[in-house]
Amino acid sequence: MKKSDVIRMIFQMRDDFIAEPRQEKGLAFAPTNIALCKYWGKRNDELNLPETSSLSIALPDKGAMTTVSLNQDASNDHIILNGKVLSPDSAFVKRVTEYLDLFRQEKQWHLKIDIKMNIPVAAGLASSACGFASLVAALNDLFGWELSKRELSLLARLGSGSASRSLWKGFVEWHAGVQSDGMDSYAEPITMEWSDLRVGILLMDEAEKQISSREAMRRTVTSSVLYASWPKKVSNDLLLLKQAMQTKNFPLFGGTAESNALTMHASMLSSWPPVCYYLPETIAAMHQVWNARKKGLELYFTQDAGPNLKLLFEEKDTKEVRAVFPEVEVIKVFE
Amino acid sequence: MKKSDVIRMIFQMRDDFIAEPRQEKGLAFAPTNIALCKYWGKRNDELNLPETSSLSIALPDKGAMTTVSLNQDASNDHIILNGKVLSPDSAFVKRVTEYLDLFRQEKQWHLKIDIKMNIPVAAGLASSACGFASLVAALNDLFGWELSKRELSLLARLGSGSASRSLWKGFVEWHAGVQSDGMDSYAEPITMEWSDLRVGILLMDEAEKQISSREAMRRTVTSSVLYASWPKKVSNDLLLLKQAMQTKNFPLFGGTAESNALTMHASMLSSWPPVCYYLPETIAAMHQVWNARKKGLELYFTQDAGPNLKLLFEEKDTKEVRAVFPEVEVIKVFE
Repeated sequence: MKKSDVIRMIFQMRDDFIAEPRQEKGLAFAPTNIALCKYWGKRNDELNLPETSSLSIALPDKGAMTTVSLNQDASNDHIILNGKVLSPDSAFVKRVTEYLDLFRQEKQWHLKIDIKMNIPVAAGLASSACGFASLVAALNDLFGWELSKRELSLLARLGSGSASRSLWKGFVEWHAGVQSDGMDSYAEPITMEWSDLRVGILLMDEAEKQISSREAMRRTVTSSVLYASWPKKVSNDLLLLKQAMQTKNFPLFGGTAESNALTMHASMLSSWPPVCYYLPETIAAMHQVWNARKKGLELYFTQDAGPNLKLLFEEKDTKEVRAVFPEVEVIKVFE
Repeated sequence: MKKSDVIRMIFQMRDDFIAEPRQEKGLAFAPTNIALCKYWGKRNDELNLPETSSLSIALPDKGAMTTVSLNQDASNDHIILNGKVLSPDSAFVKRVTEYLDLFRQEKQWHLKIDIKMNIPVAAGLASSACGFASLVAALNDLFGWELSKRELSLLARLGSGSASRSLWKGFVEWHAGVQSDGMDSYAEPITMEWSDLRVGILLMDEAEKQISSREAMRRTVTSSVLYASWPKKVSNDLLLLKQAMQTKNFPLFGGTAESNALTMHASMLSSWPPVCYYLPETIAAMHQVWNARKKGLELYFTQDAGPNLKLLFEEKDTKEVRAVFPEVEVIKVFE
């Protein structure tokens, strides 16, 4: 099964998706998302089908704003990221161009794509997630596809797995699915709010990571003996997170998210060559969190494929968290 | 099955092991040992029976020299560690006293025990391993038991699991065994030498660790889902290490040892509350090793239940290793 076959299925054999733009510009914002139960490992590399389900929280004001329009009379796509024109040879442009090729036959059109992100790129802050989610939503707008969010989630997944979760605010679950065509592997919002919940961004390093999460994932799945236990960890943690969300049990919520992240990084350390996103600063901050918790502060962290930590705490503890981490950027995840 | 039952089995129902000392002093040195395939997790807590076999290399000149003699007319044991009299309430004295109780009925004698260690205590440098191994060998000397090394290994294991491996120089394998009485769970030397092999000690922190390896092990076994995969990792790594030793394949040897250590620490990170022996300095040194390796240096590391790294390399690379780590203490493991 190829990506293009899946796209045809999503568009239900309509041919109009390759038609002319319906309007001059397509525009969409997609929030970045922080997984509380991580997506780590694929059952199908081509279709970005995950081994397990995952659960995330969106950062409502952090993400990507993407504007797409026809690149008139041009023979290639033109991509601008945060005001900077990207070289056609860059890995990112190639990835986006290949993605666009799925929607066009014989390159009958090319696009000008302007992406503005207010988070560091490729530093473990889900820039590819919000990037692809906003791109697909902007295409939907430009071409007037009028696809449902579930269909957009399926499309976004083909660009970047975790992009499937970046189409909603709040809590979102991406169902692993079991079908080989992946038509049951999409995300859905979980309708519950937790207004006291806070996410704190701790930036250790904004540099682009040396090992992509794509490569790190592949290495873990193929070389880490510990990966065999990961699916069991995820099923346990999804249950615990939902239970914690339902009962607003914050220590259970934070502890489950932290343990899930630690286990993901553990599985990477055990791969060969080892994958280690920890920097000395990351470890120092982790010990600070643990020391604060020993003193009674209900503070937890999660970490994605990058050195930065995301703190999890409740509104009532904001002052104390700031005392431990003066540089933290505090984000209210529900309005 | 209790420790005292096992001791009776080892002494084959002889009663003379509780008799008078045969000489004024018992004296023994035991080298510390660095596991290349780690001992992590017990199948029996009381008898220190491991889930898996393990393989170590002794550091010939680093370890514990223990002198034992009767503490005449005294009602308790008197323990001196590196010239300092230990309080009877200290955890170490209690542990040693309980161990001695196994060899005496109704406390008919007490000992003066003088231990000199030239490694930091309880900092992940196997101080309890060489401590208990030298103690049991010194008791053997004092009481004239004339036990075999295999019997001493069984006895040492009852004091501290990895002490079973500290009775020989060179490579040593501790067989996990399958019997419930542990009579088949002892160490044996592997008769092969690797004169070019070097171990480099990188001390990050000599402070006593906050979580004992005993507690860390227990927490991993009971709470880490990843631990289920550990026995498989060990069987793979034991085969690879022996193959590497036989063919003097250093990259296979070093890589297997490093991956084994990383996987042990990975299993700890995944336990709850998390166990993390990494300090920022540990992670910095790990990245230095990986960067040096990328540039072609055949340098690997292993790490025990503490923040310090032990480098593995060959004699020919000593100068380059010193260039990366000027503070390293280089140890020739075979004379």
